[in-house]
Amino acid sequence: MTSHVAPSIDVPALTGLLDGRYTEIRQMVRKNMVEYADILVDAEQMTRPEFRQRVLDVMIEMAATGQTGMGFPEEYGGGGDVGASMAAFETLGYGDLSVLTKVGVQFGLFGGAILQLGTKPHHDAYLADLVTGRLLGCFAMTETGHGSNVQALGTTATYDPDAGEFVISTPDDASRKDYIGNAADHGRMAVVFAQLLIGGESQGVHAFVTPIRAEDGSPMPGVRIEDCGAKIGLNGVDNGRIWFDGVRVPRTTLLNRYADVDEKGEYSSPIENKDRRFFTMLGTLIQGRVCVGGAAINASKVAITIAVKYALHRRQFGAPGSDEESLLLDYGMHQRRLFPLLARTYAMHFAQERLAAGLHDAFSTVDVDASEHERRALESRAAGTKALGTWHASTTIQACREACGGAGYMSVNRFDALRADTDVFTTFEGDNTILLQLVAKGLLTDYRDEFSDLDPLGMVRFVASTAVETVFEKTNVRQMVERLRDAVPGSDNDGDPDAGLLDPEYHLSMLRWREQHMLTGVARRLKNGLDRGRDPVEVFSECQDHVIASAWAHVERLVLETFVDKIEGMDDDGNREAMNLVCDLFALSAIEQGRAWFMEHGRLSTQRSKAVTAMVNELCTRVRPIADDLVDAFDVPPEMLRAEIIAPTG
Amino acid sequence: MTSHVAPSIDVPALTGLLDGRYTEIRQMVRKNMVEYADILVDAEQMTRPEFRQRVLDVMIEMAATGQTGMGFPEEYGGGGDVGASMAAFETLGYGDLSVLTKVGVQFGLFGGAILQLGTKPHHDAYLADLVTGRLLGCFAMTETGHGSNVQALGTTATYDPDAGEFVISTPDDASRKDYIGNAADHGRMAVVFAQLLIGGESQGVHAFVTPIRAEDGSPMPGVRIEDCGAKIGLNGVDNGRIWFDGVRVPRTTLLNRYADVDEKGEYSSPIENKDRRFFTMLGTLIQGRVCVGGAAINASKVAITIAVKYALHRRQFGAPGSDEESLLLDYGMHQRRLFPLLARTYAMHFAQERLAAGLHDAFSTVDVDASEHERRALESRAAGTKALGTWHASTTIQACREACGGAGYMSVNRFDALRADTDVFTTFEGDNTILLQLVAKGLLTDYRDEFSDLDPLGMVRFVASTAVETVFEKTNVRQMVERLRDAVPGSDNDGDPDAGLLDPEYHLSMLRWREQHMLTGVARRLKNGLDRGRDPVEVFSECQDHVIASAWAHVERLVLETFVDKIEGMDDDGNREAMNLVCDLFALSAIEQGRAWFMEHGRLSTQRSKAVTAMVNELCTRVRPIADDLVDAFDVPPEMLRAEIIAPTG
Repeated sequence: MTSHVAPSIDVPALTGLLDGRYTEIRQMVRKNMVEYADILVDAEQMTRPEFRQRVLDVMIEMAATGQTGMGFPEEYGGGGDVGASMAAFETLGYGDLSVLTKVGVQFGLFGGAILQLGTKPHHDAYLADLVTGRLLGCFAMTETGHGSNVQALGTTATYDPDAGEFVISTPDDASRKDYIGNAADHGRMAVVFAQLLIGGESQGVHAFVTPIRAEDGSPMPGVRIEDCGAKIGLNGVDNGRIWFDGVRVPRTTLLNRYADVDEKGEYSSPIENKDRRFFTMLGTLIQGRVCVGGAAINASKVAITIAVKYALHRRQFGAPGSDEESLLLDYGMHQRRLFPLLARTYAMHFAQERLAAGLHDAFSTVDVDASEHERRALESRAAGTKALGTWHASTTIQACREACGGAGYMSVNRFDALRADTDVFTTFEGDNTILLQLVAKGLLTDYRDEFSDLDPLGMVRFVASTAVETVFEKTNVRQMVERLRDAVPGSDNDGDPDAGLLDPEYHLSMLRWREQHMLTGVARRLKNGLDRGRDPVEVFSECQDHVIASAWAHVERLVLETFVDKIEGMDDDGNREAMNLVCDLFALSAIEQGRAWFMEHGRLSTQRSKAVTAMVNELCTRVRPIADDLVDAFDVPPEMLRAEIIAPTG
Repeated sequence: MTSHVAPSIDVPALTGLLDGRYTEIRQMVRKNMVEYADILVDAEQMTRPEFRQRVLDVMIEMAATGQTGMGFPEEYGGGGDVGASMAAFETLGYGDLSVLTKVGVQFGLFGGAILQLGTKPHHDAYLADLVTGRLLGCFAMTETGHGSNVQALGTTATYDPDAGEFVISTPDDASRKDYIGNAADHGRMAVVFAQLLIGGESQGVHAFVTPIRAEDGSPMPGVRIEDCGAKIGLNGVDNGRIWFDGVRVPRTTLLNRYADVDEKGEYSSPIENKDRRFFTMLGTLIQGRVCVGGAAINASKVAITIAVKYALHRRQFGAPGSDEESLLLDYGMHQRRLFPLLARTYAMHFAQERLAAGLHDAFSTVDVDASEHERRALESRAAGTKALGTWHASTTIQACREACGGAGYMSVNRFDALRADTDVFTTFEGDNTILLQLVAKGLLTDYRDEFSDLDPLGMVRFVASTAVETVFEKTNVRQMVERLRDAVPGSDNDGDPDAGLLDPEYHLSMLRWREQHMLTGVARRLKNGLDRGRDPVEVFSECQDHVIASAWAHVERLVLETFVDKIEGMDDDGNREAMNLVCDLFALSAIEQGRAWFMEHGRLSTQRSKAVTAMVNELCTRVRPIADDLVDAFDVPPEMLRAEIIAPTG
């Protein structure tokens, strides 16, 4: 093993790189959250009702600083900057996550729906009050029996032309609105998603601004609300269930940017296809999904900071002949448990930054419909980054908790809240498994499908009719294999199994090859299955793990590309050296994780596979001297770390 | 794909197989826990102090039924049956886990220490009161700065020959007793582990029965107690910290089965070597570790039961041309997520049963020291089963939670408590990583080391001096490879990659080969490193992942062997057929998980590796029709499932 000089890191500059374009707003949010740092203690000590109230109060205070309204137009008191809004939200991931989620419900989901699906009268009526938190609201989409498949919602809104009103009803308990944030206590209004029925005909799911509580807090007539009660985490958010029993609302409550109903009950929309219309509407709401991914990645930073700092002072077992025990972070296994996760946290951060920038651009241009292909690619990137980012958070927080032993189990050391609060991120704002199916669908159809439907069977049918050719055209596996093999330095053809292991081009070629190979393979399997006349449900079920693995491979490739790009733009200094090391560790540990597949498909010799593992170990020892700087650069305010265990006792 | 007729399962008979020798006591515990089923609601609704009291009350009530005292001698009101005691404890894993842990602290740790380390006067003084719960106590071993390395404890017990007393002191905050169950509120006594100092000389760690609270509940003079406060889970257990400031206790408080101090301060022990003495003492306490593993496995059963039943009525997305959506459990990916975990739950159950039987025999024979080699092998099996069982629980509960989507996040559906309460199991009663090191050490030294030390560096030194030869002698890799290759039907030598994939001999040969190969390899690496004069700390750190992987491979082999043995003893009926299927799925998914290693080491061709994955998918479809029966056979009382989500709404 050669010895390597550790890169010299300029921590504030590295923080600057991470904070990027939105340094100022991120610093403002950090500063603001320190003001109410004691909410971390309240989360643990208050009763549920008290804590819900406390979270509400903090949210309203924060609204007054402007940090939560960055995404709304300036004429309604907002900041008019979508990117800043996402940066601000993400940074809340360092603090209490009930606050973050409450902010997301109020400003992102409720506010976002009115902003994106409504028109000027709705904006004039609600936005100014909503931005200050005077008007609290819900986003009432999910139902007990209908989660991922939102087109199948059961709630109905029937137009009554005589009264000029919609009548909103919950036909059965499977169609009650469920897990709705702000519903149990605080929400006055709800954007209710329901099947629009006119003259007995369904026009599909639409959104209606519906009052659910009177000024005194009691439910409106015909509205029944139940508290969801205790949850694994996020207990500062008042989730509830809502039933509607013939609730009448004026015709103008329909959020009518994409479709309208006139007084006589004539339905009109600029988008002909019903499904496409619905998914266009949904597409405007992806900011919520993007924000959850960003929050998860920032929560990972808190966990990894605590675990690294703990391992930098906790000693265990002695070196021979020494009275002093060894630092936890000097154990190979401990480095193995933490450093690949630290590296992936950096990688996911930059992937998220890139996604948010894309979203900012898309939502800041006037003509949103400019390029539908691009918009769908962006939606796919949002779905994939959210899935990988939230799973990464769950894995990282758990590993960090275990790496802190019994101390990690004490609530004061933060892992309790981190683990409980982030857990639902993997299944809300789109279940990760379903989201990866969406990603795969986009890839298999080159985003040419009618709409970004989440239904996996739609994908099978589409692929069966057109996609294999498309995929083959785009990729031509055989040619690609040759091209990549030729281009790759240190491919398995030459003798030295270590050659080129730290070359980013090698890493990229591996992840690209895997993606293309998996996608082509799955397209062929789907098509072959249907060609033989088999039941599409069965064919899909058989290939589902393959579909999801393909999507994962795609997203991981995007993440690596973004990281490599980011480094290319850096000055040639210690920070760049450090980022190179971190990127190598991320890339090689991703390849290591997938090495069985690479071997199975002849892309990695068994000897080189072992070399990859050995190099991951080696890179961990190289990261060891800079680990403290790497977590310091996340700049998590010390008040948010809270953890007693990182201030040594005794 | 060939179609297979699903085995016909006799559910009560399968439950009988699982419950085994202790059917009666297990049914009694099930029945008792239903009596206080509402504690699952209390866990969620009560304040921490209320819930702690409730858990205490339930424990005392249970003590009156006799189920918690099965392991104590009959003359003190116990049941005199170690095996029954473990079966009863494990079954508590179906219910609230604060109750289980409180029982474990009081009867297993506190009671077990007095029983195993004390002598007749201690038994006469404490056991009868302890068995009824009239005397509540703590097991005060862990310190803030000393967890896994218990030999380095800082608390001191200095003998004062003039007074005939020990003086117990906490020298610094790193040496305060920490995370001690029963300490914050209820414990009157504590078995305190401290360095015994006589005339300025340390005799190593010994245990002392020390009063910590007066009758009125206030701390004894010189004792300071602090509440650990909120924890991730197990909040019905009152964990605390204890400091001792020159607390004087009579000479007879020393638990003197293995060592004694006479009035003049003369120290004596039947075990010469200080380290060996200590680890002999520790060895008598392994029942706690065994019980945690069993509890974790039973908690997994609750989670998998809920997830399977949920997926058997929840529908999502439609089959083409059908109005009805498909059942979650009919999706390939859903089967993939749940069924290998279900299979492993069965495998771990039987492994645990085997371990508990071994422990019962060891603790029921008069001469405990009969075979030291066997005793150490048993300790190693206990360590390994605990590590794999508790990690399995964490993985399973999390996967099941995600498989239930948002509904899984609601506390009412059980995953909240399951996930929070079991989380610490991976790091208490021995940190899993450290435990696997202990397993590896035993294997590398053939249990010939002086004592079952947890210190990894001791292992390096030992291996360096003797072990490679030992390991080589025992295994002789080359010969073994040949022998196995010859013996295995359908090895990679013949053409059909599916041949023999479902032959248990093939599965066993794979896992045995991996174990031997890994162990020999790690022994060679350790020895080579030291032969070159390198720092043992560094050498160990480099090989640590390899050491741990070897131990894992060993334990997984034991688990599979036990499952295969179990099936061999079954009648030739539908249940046996079902168990064969489950065992195949367990074995092949274990091989699949390790397939990268098998390919790297030439034990699996790339083609056969793909065949393994395809077969795992295929086996999942075969398990699908019997999944409901398989979870029903666990016989988790419906009251303990609680989950609203498995009773369909609407």
